[in-house]
Amino acid sequence: MTRSFASDNNAGAHPEVLAALARVNEGHVRAYGDDPFTASAIATLRGHLGETAEIFFVFGGTGANVLGLHALMRPHEAVICSQYAHIHVDECGAPERFIGCKLVGVEAPDGKVTPEAVTARLGVVGNEHHSQPRVVSISQATEYGTVYTPEEVRALADTAHAHELWLHVDGARIANAAAALDVPLRAITADAGVDVLSLGGTKNGLVGGEAVVFFDPARAERFRFMRKQAMQLPSKMRFIAAQFEALFVNDLWLRSARHANAMAQRLAERVRDVPGVTITQAVDANAVFATLPAGTVPALQESCFFYVWDEGRSEVRWMASWDTTEEDVDAFASTIARAMGSPRQASSTS
Amino acid sequence: MTRSFASDNNAGAHPEVLAALARVNEGHVRAYGDDPFTASAIATLRGHLGETAEIFFVFGGTGANVLGLHALMRPHEAVICSQYAHIHVDECGAPERFIGCKLVGVEAPDGKVTPEAVTARLGVVGNEHHSQPRVVSISQATEYGTVYTPEEVRALADTAHAHELWLHVDGARIANAAAALDVPLRAITADAGVDVLSLGGTKNGLVGGEAVVFFDPARAERFRFMRKQAMQLPSKMRFIAAQFEALFVNDLWLRSARHANAMAQRLAERVRDVPGVTITQAVDANAVFATLPAGTVPALQESCFFYVWDEGRSEVRWMASWDTTEEDVDAFASTIARAMGSPRQASSTS
Amino acid sequence: MTRSFASDNNAGAHPEVLAALARVNEGHVRAYGDDPFTASAIATLRGHLGETAEIFFVFGGTGANVLGLHALMRPHEAVICSQYAHIHVDECGAPERFIGCKLVGVEAPDGKVTPEAVTARLGVVGNEHHSQPRVVSISQATEYGTVYTPEEVRALADTAHAHELWLHVDGARIANAAAALDVPLRAITADAGVDVLSLGGTKNGLVGGEAVVFFDPARAERFRFMRKQAMQLPSKMRFIAAQFEALFVNDLWLRSARHANAMAQRLAERVRDVPGVTITQAVDANAVFATLPAGTVPALQESCFFYVWDEGRSEVRWMASWDTTEEDVDAFASTIARAMGSPRQASSTS
Amino acid sequence: MTRSFASDNNAGAHPEVLAALARVNEGHVRAYGDDPFTASAIATLRGHLGETAEIFFVFGGTGANVLGLHALMRPHEAVICSQYAHIHVDECGAPERFIGCKLVGVEAPDGKVTPEAVTARLGVVGNEHHSQPRVVSISQATEYGTVYTPEEVRALADTAHAHELWLHVDGARIANAAAALDVPLRAITADAGVDVLSLGGTKNGLVGGEAVVFFDPARAERFRFMRKQAMQLPSKMRFIAAQFEALFVNDLWLRSARHANAMAQRLAERVRDVPGVTITQAVDANAVFATLPAGTVPALQESCFFYVWDEGRSEVRWMASWDTTEEDVDAFASTIARAMGSPRQASSTS
Repeated sequence: MTRSFASDNNAGAHPEVLAALARVNEGHVRAYGDDPFTASAIATLRGHLGETAEIFFVFGGTGANVLGLHALMRPHEAVICSQYAHIHVDECGAPERFIGCKLVGVEAPDGKVTPEAVTARLGVVGNEHHSQPRVVSISQATEYGTVYTPEEVRALADTAHAHELWLHVDGARIANAAAALDVPLRAITADAGVDVLSLGGTKNGLVGGEAVVFFDPARAERFRFMRKQAMQLPSKMRFIAAQFEALFVNDLWLRSARHANAMAQRLAERVRDVPGVTITQAVDANAVFATLPAGTVPALQESCFFYVWDEGRSEVRWMASWDTTEEDVDAFASTIARAMGSPRQASSTS
Repeated sequence: MTRSFASDNNAGAHPEVLAALARVNEGHVRAYGDDPFTASAIATLRGHLGETAEIFFVFGGTGANVLGLHALMRPHEAVICSQYAHIHVDECGAPERFIGCKLVGVEAPDGKVTPEAVTARLGVVGNEHHSQPRVVSISQATEYGTVYTPEEVRALADTAHAHELWLHVDGARIANAAAALDVPLRAITADAGVDVLSLGGTKNGLVGGEAVVFFDPARAERFRFMRKQAMQLPSKMRFIAAQFEALFVNDLWLRSARHANAMAQRLAERVRDVPGVTITQAVDANAVFATLPAGTVPALQESCFFYVWDEGRSEVRWMASWDTTEEDVDAFASTIARAMGSPRQASSTS
Repeated sequence: MTRSFASDNNAGAHPEVLAALARVNEGHVRAYGDDPFTASAIATLRGHLGETAEIFFVFGGTGANVLGLHALMRPHEAVICSQYAHIHVDECGAPERFIGCKLVGVEAPDGKVTPEAVTARLGVVGNEHHSQPRVVSISQATEYGTVYTPEEVRALADTAHAHELWLHVDGARIANAAAALDVPLRAITADAGVDVLSLGGTKNGLVGGEAVVFFDPARAERFRFMRKQAMQLPSKMRFIAAQFEALFVNDLWLRSARHANAMAQRLAERVRDVPGVTITQAVDANAVFATLPAGTVPALQESCFFYVWDEGRSEVRWMASWDTTEEDVDAFASTIARAMGSPRQASSTS
Repeated sequence: MTRSFASDNNAGAHPEVLAALARVNEGHVRAYGDDPFTASAIATLRGHLGETAEIFFVFGGTGANVLGLHALMRPHEAVICSQYAHIHVDECGAPERFIGCKLVGVEAPDGKVTPEAVTARLGVVGNEHHSQPRVVSISQATEYGTVYTPEEVRALADTAHAHELWLHVDGARIANAAAALDVPLRAITADAGVDVLSLGGTKNGLVGGEAVVFFDPARAERFRFMRKQAMQLPSKMRFIAAQFEALFVNDLWLRSARHANAMAQRLAERVRDVPGVTITQAVDANAVFATLPAGTVPALQESCFFYVWDEGRSEVRWMASWDTTEEDVDAFASTIARAMGSPRQASSTS
């Protein structure tokens, strides 16, 4: 088997995406986004996100997050996010470095920030000794594979805006969230009060590329300069644009996300009753979190690589991708069951 | 005609490069460079740059330059470069922002920094009120299309090292320089005393991707962390690695660079004697710089887009690419000649 | 009464310190520390901190901390400190802004970081997605008025050094710590393995001024430039040097710190048994932390200002200074007792 | 002789300033500027600068400049200043480091930026590859001791504002400029269209302290937080406030500046006709620039220290202070004359 459950960024690119690269390769176009392919991709994305959305392509997810936040704040300000937020614990301090700001992680056992957790952090407002909260950042789907409902996003947006904060969404997996909720992208972004979105592409079948989306053009006013200074302005922009066009023109984004989610569901169902396996989070999107007897992990990783999420609790993460097959899932579930010493359970699932 | 003389980053990707993307697309591999395709590409590059070279792929040229410099210095230090250096005038302050350092531009009428210009800037060493020179950065080929000989690079390296400075090369077009000099890459980098190189790929026919090369592994010690924090760590690294493999495994880099250089030479020869056209720089690599009567520029740009380099002097830049054809050159030369009012001259060149 | 229990930085300057300013005011001396008064003060300080210590005067405490940390690390690295550390929660993000690093706050109910808390954070070492721990920073005395023993400092230093981390001490109140422990400054710094110290002056009776102390000169190598770039190089340095000379030449630092500590002890004893008052931390140095019935706080603050430390727990901080008198303490204790409705208790203490 | 002509920051503090420190030393006041002495000093300064001016005290001149600029711009923007500007060449890259911006130095043979030099740099506006000009910064008096007239300041302000730039003044020596012009401070700041001023204190007889002045309160909105994060918030603020009160309540600032200017004039007159001495700049304020035979400089420096300004041209700077006496000047002039081999000339001046 050549496919693992390590991460959706371990998968390759969808064939429709590769084909799109070839399609835009002919002849010369101006660099840095001043080309018809970029214009077309933005128009396609606006169909999903709103006609007034300002959309900028960038190289990677860290860049998208850092730039989206940077546009909303100044260095003496703070971002309120989950204690598990990718921007807080998985980007090697990139936000602090580039923005000069502080990140304030709040407790979020299921990965989701609540309005109460936000307001609890506002006591420092106006006190010059403390970084001033200016942005609430949530991940959708979260790092724990859970999903905010449109109402939950709206409640956070209302809380944020009531206190002159902005709402930022790290949407590296927003496709999986929308697929899980069975709502259009707009329902959990523009229509729910989100100010800025990192629109993920890489984890949903692109070769590479992300977009920063501003729902109020006023927020994007000087963003072009910020993107350049942040080393995130692709010169042959047409190749990133074309990938997004491929992803969004025929709902490839949704097909792929639905499939990945279904594979995670299938895996969860296959292993849920295996003795020794305890699923620890709601399987809303394309990830399954589970605790296993610590001793069983290394051999399992050997047979099919995945990451340990929390060493202390022996919690692991299994993640499905656009290219995960039912056979992959069933084989892996069998392997898990065997590793837990219950081969019958596993075979019964196939 | 769909090809301009605006820039080599207006061209698409070479077919061999696109094919390489498809070739590595199967199955899952670990992200962030821990995969066999990346290992293979690095091995291939070491064949050109030296077996001890430490090589890191990044998204873009600005990122490559900023990171290479960052690894060599601290924020209270300064980079000595040409007044025309891309890092100094074309990256929207990215080095200052990310490194926190100062760039000191020295006069360089042909785009080339001299040892004398470097030593003239060292009077501030030891004085805490002044940013301390730590790196000399040169562009090879320069922004003016000129090329440093191996001896010139060596002289700069010796000068730098004699004063405890490092030598950094912005090699966005180093392929064109090596092709022009007819030497291997090593002759103008490792063997000439260069410490760090931005090895360009995008402008020589990639979809997108650059590499940072350290010739002494000691310089690269903590670079992995710097790359991540700088938002320049590609998650699906195999796709950048595969492009470099395609570029360097069968000397595509050299074939493309030689061709682009030859096309620039051809253009220079075709227009050199056209009245009104004055070529202002040596045509060492793939660029032709010329002054034109200001009034003739807009119509020429209309027929085939290119950039004005210096408005005041009415100096323009024409740049050839891997995909520029002889027909492109001859047609453009005719257009120029006609625009100058000398149709005969132009026709005689075809 | 004109003296509060709000903070030791609400006090003025000690008369011996003011006198020292006048003493060095005659004539011209070179600026920026190249003067005999600065040399003399450094010599005096070396008598307390070790003859090889490198000592630099700066304007303020935030600057001292940020610069000391900056000298020890690079931006992709992290500082491990207490969740209550001044650098983490009271400096408006200055370390993140200037260094570009991440601060990792660990649980510390009594304000003190433990070796176990440090090692628990080292699982990320070597993983490029996470800021790399490079410095352990402790406050001595802590923000909770508690004090690390020499053995506790040594254990932290050993733990740090065993993992290639440095030990930094925010010594805004290190005088109070040394006085409390009745040991020389060296016993809790150089002799205990500390690498860098912010040596506080302002809170111990100066007009203003702090020092950064490196116990290994190798750490201080390029510090002069860092200080200048950090906007912390005083031009008329003699005036900061003279204050430190006054503080350390005749043990004014110790007299003042002992006195402040004694006044805090006196206050703690006076109010310890007052019903409604619960002292929450060991009164090691010059601060008393206590919980009070929330309703009693505003009126008390009105009569003698102090700060609420934790709104949720109704925990307050009372801090004694070099100029706090026994009468101040007794009067304040009486006021507290009256506010708690137990006048008898209070009067019995006088 | 204990007074040199090296710099006005080689002088001590004026006795009226020292006396002011003692005057505010009694009792406790809140820290960080929330005290009556700070309020009073601000009121006094508003009498000179306008009732709506927002005024913030900081530790030093570099901090004042960097913070004033920071409040006006974002990191992708640029400051246009003279090639000799202190912020550009004498602050070890502090603006680049803290703001993340670029400084663009323009030719200014007499130290003064012209409106034409500003507009010549605006061709990059709107081009994302270039740092966007946002602030014009001038030094008043300039680093060359020259002074902008109110009309010259107004012309720069009008040019700046016409292009959506701000005008910043580094007023480390603005007192000398106002004294030279014989106008109130307001005439060359608020009334001339200046947006932000670094109001110098240290070089005009303070122990240490500067102020950042915003003439439109809208510019100062979040400045308190910026000052704290920039490590420039003095905790015992009363002591800086009191010095400014002393400087401005009885026109000490003007008396001192006039005196220093007069001493520079006297020196210029004494040496102007000495063979070998060529005064190179207008002696508007308190500095004299002159070229000398290179061989004469070391011995002269030995007898009375001063700085060489431009090694190549053998240009030196002599600077008078609030405490320079006529005797100091005459003795130094005689020394110079003797060193030039013209004892008669020198004696005739005494």
